[in-house]
Amino acid sequence: MQKYVATVGGGVASLRLTEAKAAKVGPGEVRVQVEAVSLNRRDLMILEGGYPVAPGDFVPVSDGAGIVTEVGPGVTWKVGDRVVASFFPDWHFGDPRSDTTARSLGTGSLGMLASEVVLPANGLVRAPTHLSAEQAATLPCAGVTAWHALFEVGALKRDGWVLLQGTGGVSIFGLQLARAAGYRAVITSSSDEKLARARSLGASATVNYRTSEDWADDVATLTGGVDRVIEVGGSGTLEGSVRAARPGARIAIIGGLTGFEGGVSALDLIFRSLHLDGILIGSRSMLEDLSRFLEATGIEPVVDQVFPFARAADAFRTFGENEHFGKIVVTLNPGKP
Amino acid sequence: MQKYVATVGGGVASLRLTEAKAAKVGPGEVRVQVEAVSLNRRDLMILEGGYPVAPGDFVPVSDGAGIVTEVGPGVTWKVGDRVVASFFPDWHFGDPRSDTTARSLGTGSLGMLASEVVLPANGLVRAPTHLSAEQAATLPCAGVTAWHALFEVGALKRDGWVLLQGTGGVSIFGLQLARAAGYRAVITSSSDEKLARARSLGASATVNYRTSEDWADDVATLTGGVDRVIEVGGSGTLEGSVRAARPGARIAIIGGLTGFEGGVSALDLIFRSLHLDGILIGSRSMLEDLSRFLEATGIEPVVDQVFPFARAADAFRTFGENEHFGKIVVTLNPGKP
Amino acid sequence: MQKYVATVGGGVASLRLTEAKAAKVGPGEVRVQVEAVSLNRRDLMILEGGYPVAPGDFVPVSDGAGIVTEVGPGVTWKVGDRVVASFFPDWHFGDPRSDTTARSLGTGSLGMLASEVVLPANGLVRAPTHLSAEQAATLPCAGVTAWHALFEVGALKRDGWVLLQGTGGVSIFGLQLARAAGYRAVITSSSDEKLARARSLGASATVNYRTSEDWADDVATLTGGVDRVIEVGGSGTLEGSVRAARPGARIAIIGGLTGFEGGVSALDLIFRSLHLDGILIGSRSMLEDLSRFLEATGIEPVVDQVFPFARAADAFRTFGENEHFGKIVVTLNPGKP
Amino acid sequence: MQKYVATVGGGVASLRLTEAKAAKVGPGEVRVQVEAVSLNRRDLMILEGGYPVAPGDFVPVSDGAGIVTEVGPGVTWKVGDRVVASFFPDWHFGDPRSDTTARSLGTGSLGMLASEVVLPANGLVRAPTHLSAEQAATLPCAGVTAWHALFEVGALKRDGWVLLQGTGGVSIFGLQLARAAGYRAVITSSSDEKLARARSLGASATVNYRTSEDWADDVATLTGGVDRVIEVGGSGTLEGSVRAARPGARIAIIGGLTGFEGGVSALDLIFRSLHLDGILIGSRSMLEDLSRFLEATGIEPVVDQVFPFARAADAFRTFGENEHFGKIVVTLNPGKP
Repeated sequence: MQKYVATVGGGVASLRLTEAKAAKVGPGEVRVQVEAVSLNRRDLMILEGGYPVAPGDFVPVSDGAGIVTEVGPGVTWKVGDRVVASFFPDWHFGDPRSDTTARSLGTGSLGMLASEVVLPANGLVRAPTHLSAEQAATLPCAGVTAWHALFEVGALKRDGWVLLQGTGGVSIFGLQLARAAGYRAVITSSSDEKLARARSLGASATVNYRTSEDWADDVATLTGGVDRVIEVGGSGTLEGSVRAARPGARIAIIGGLTGFEGGVSALDLIFRSLHLDGILIGSRSMLEDLSRFLEATGIEPVVDQVFPFARAADAFRTFGENEHFGKIVVTLNPGKP
Repeated sequence: MQKYVATVGGGVASLRLTEAKAAKVGPGEVRVQVEAVSLNRRDLMILEGGYPVAPGDFVPVSDGAGIVTEVGPGVTWKVGDRVVASFFPDWHFGDPRSDTTARSLGTGSLGMLASEVVLPANGLVRAPTHLSAEQAATLPCAGVTAWHALFEVGALKRDGWVLLQGTGGVSIFGLQLARAAGYRAVITSSSDEKLARARSLGASATVNYRTSEDWADDVATLTGGVDRVIEVGGSGTLEGSVRAARPGARIAIIGGLTGFEGGVSALDLIFRSLHLDGILIGSRSMLEDLSRFLEATGIEPVVDQVFPFARAADAFRTFGENEHFGKIVVTLNPGKP
Repeated sequence: MQKYVATVGGGVASLRLTEAKAAKVGPGEVRVQVEAVSLNRRDLMILEGGYPVAPGDFVPVSDGAGIVTEVGPGVTWKVGDRVVASFFPDWHFGDPRSDTTARSLGTGSLGMLASEVVLPANGLVRAPTHLSAEQAATLPCAGVTAWHALFEVGALKRDGWVLLQGTGGVSIFGLQLARAAGYRAVITSSSDEKLARARSLGASATVNYRTSEDWADDVATLTGGVDRVIEVGGSGTLEGSVRAARPGARIAIIGGLTGFEGGVSALDLIFRSLHLDGILIGSRSMLEDLSRFLEATGIEPVVDQVFPFARAADAFRTFGENEHFGKIVVTLNPGKP
Repeated sequence: MQKYVATVGGGVASLRLTEAKAAKVGPGEVRVQVEAVSLNRRDLMILEGGYPVAPGDFVPVSDGAGIVTEVGPGVTWKVGDRVVASFFPDWHFGDPRSDTTARSLGTGSLGMLASEVVLPANGLVRAPTHLSAEQAATLPCAGVTAWHALFEVGALKRDGWVLLQGTGGVSIFGLQLARAAGYRAVITSSSDEKLARARSLGASATVNYRTSEDWADDVATLTGGVDRVIEVGGSGTLEGSVRAARPGARIAIIGGLTGFEGGVSALDLIFRSLHLDGILIGSRSMLEDLSRFLEATGIEPVVDQVFPFARAADAFRTFGENEHFGKIVVTLNPGKP
């Protein structure tokens, strides 16, 4: 089998494709032939050294989809089943615990950027039947995070507005999921062209944060105050998210594109009756629910660009340029892209 | 009628007892003869100038209980009804809105530190029958805040631990409510005597933050991580609360005894899967639910000290010394205390 | 002013248009000039004598929309406001209580089939701005009932199926609301033409219960078991609803088109893990939420036929024929229909 | 190993103790040395032939506790762990499905009335540390059913009343759990002595249904209408439960001590705004939550009588007399009872 190995903090340059011996499949385990993986900010942060993981070599990328090729004793999956791997293979349902989130894909030897991987059987989910492997590979981190932020932290009132920041993977998933569930979505971007594309996906309102004098003020005016924020920006956007929200709104804290310094003042939280929810990806059960919802609604994840396995480093570089709309995918399927 | 008037930012020294003409009772209004009021930190902050309200003279104190003496047209209260006034007379149920929280007691002319007050009929709640006026006067701000933080922001799991900070009004209410609902409570204080008293009220664990090397660490060790924090401290305690919490816990942000600078880092929220909930007192409906719960369980609020109406300034000074356990009350009932 | 009066049990024949003196508007009250009313089964059942209300004369019809023409003391509505009347004028939010559901429109003197009516101000809701009076008049009973059954009794999972029976007012509202919130809907009818129309409104699956050998079996096969039933049929359909449902599903019990004899066996409830929810229309708060949701989504209620005020009896007769798709409305607006 | 075998419909007389070869422990499986089992109505109904299971021989009893003595590949339990077996070994969390509830203990070869049993590792739960095996053996069916009925089907308001019928295992668990969570409980019995005992366990009100003219009326008067019913009676009590409930209450349908004929009329459900919830025991996750709650609160299940393994038939006969208060247990521990 083939796998990419890289060094924590070594950057994209440290990525090298290696030949390795296939691991044994033990009881409760499954061998998955990887068909496609998708990139997330965390993958890049680990490569570049800004993420709290053990130092040393590792197999990159948390998100992937593939085909079961071997099953260990006591497993109900069948050879040929199409599956998606859950980000935390041991977090099955309910609240996270330190023991159930200790292992995560894309760290140590558990990376998906490989021709095959051996995983716990109950850390897998059936891939939605209407999706290609390239599409299915986008679910575990970006899809589940958007799902978690929208549907698993407090009820969003039926006529609610959802604020999405930029056009990365989580935000575009958030837009698609929110619209399919009947909510209104407002989205920001620095590109009018991307905003137009977001409108075609159902965005009810858009704000160009480059040309706007005060994007948060514009969002508040357009919506009367949003009910939910999928906050991917971090310290550069949080203050604006607070001002864009109506009293009682929830701000789902996802990421820190612009860093993690500062924070929300307690006084703002109290006087604006706001709720801040830290979102640590999600459980296998959320991935299952997301998959079924995609099947029920027919939603197809938005894949911006697909790179062949041999060009994984280019995929990372493109991802790092931050110009994508939706997801960047690496495929192992011949003939794709 | 008599009422105290003070000046925003004028401090306790600006409090003066004045004679005034009784206001008219209009449609949908009720005249309440005030029997007792209780003090809250906000009352003192307004007096001392650290709270965002309009400048000028005002009638202090938000929380009071009394007897209906006159009803306007279209009102179903009867003369003689014993009532408690809701902190926000226009916030009846559901999420707060800027229009329903625009008016609050203890500001402008709507203060309870008076022999009588005219209030909207639907901003009142029947006083629990088993409580004295002095006890009932403690419900609107401290009682409702603890209620809101425990029972109105996300489900607390049945075997959950609640962390209470210090022995002020909200914390002692939190202790009593949490215990009556079957939860375990851990409480902090700088006084072993107060901790002993908290134990007698049901605290399952206690930490003396003065003698402890690291109170948050002690709380985490004693409880395995708390599930809910009623965070009254502000910037001096929030970092500890985050460390004392288990993954998935909620931290209800109540106040800023130690200031409001800083805040929680987004990274901590994400990696510890924490939720921060800004608690803006609560609605009339929460006050009703609290009152019924007190009746059902027989809980009596803990009143630390009762001052006569003429000594209201002393009550404020004692409150400001921060040595109380439970609530400081001013009574207008003759013979009490 | 003009109003229809009828006799409980007197049938449609007992309807007579009368002249009457306008009532006074007291404190907390509002005079509403009625623009349109819509008919519900209950209105007909009261007329025909099959509904538990006090005997004697009454003003029929619970559901109507109109314009505020006079406000009593202590009221914040303004003359000219367009409003919809809540079915239970005293049930504002939360669970019903015997005192808050004692008064309901369409009984005694509180009927909407009149040129004007005096109502409690807090029993009114702002009409959605995008709806005509004829459309808005359909909300209080049929709209709120569907809303309550879908969104106020237990969470419906995101990929859930909703079963709707027939094409009456509640079922068509149920279809529109379910679809707008992202759920899949299956609907039954005896008419292929009506099923085609339901498909054009978004129904994902349809069953003609006349030509089907076993409609419940067909529904179960098409959907894999539904998650929610809006059960309007009564004893003739309940057994089928139980068979059409998946384990854990909820059956919202709305009405008894085919009678109320029998019931669900306890054994079926247990072994199929089903939940039965009695739906008593709903609160003012639900009507507000419904109105905002309609505005947010742009949904327009389906009005089958509009009769002029003078032909109210014909409207009832047409309603009784049970051939409508959506709502039957009586208008007082000149030039409509 | 030794196990009891009986014949479906053969009655208690068909129970015979047999010697058998120990089963192999496969991947994902665990061998449990049974220490104690507890009896439930279903066990007796299967023996007597009134329960829908496959005919033929079977190993009786669903509920038991014991010690892990062997673990198969891929299992994290350790030899020596004290465990309780979940009623449905494949229903782990969330709603039941037909595939996850297909296998249940106490049917076929999966009975606990044996010296040892081989079970799926993820169908086991750690036994509460403060309980004896005899006490722990009461949790899976009676304990989980009461838990499910109280805490897993809709929110019970904080000042709510719970109605318990009789003093069998589910009702006494319901009493203990409701009290520990701060709710008020009213309980019925035909014995004043048992009612006195229930009071000592915390019942706030009691009704002797033999000496009462109308127990449901008495319950309604004492409580103002109950908020939750744990309905164990079936057709003999359901009508009374409906009358004893306040509007908006939930009736958890557990069993049919007095048969399952009839049912609740749809009209009653609507006009009293009631909810009926079929309770099919519960998931492993509920058993875990129950176990942790018992540890947190120190509750000890009430064991009425303990029989030695050799006298299992006597245990069934005593159970059938329906005179117990709490649970009937069979122990395999030497020296107990």
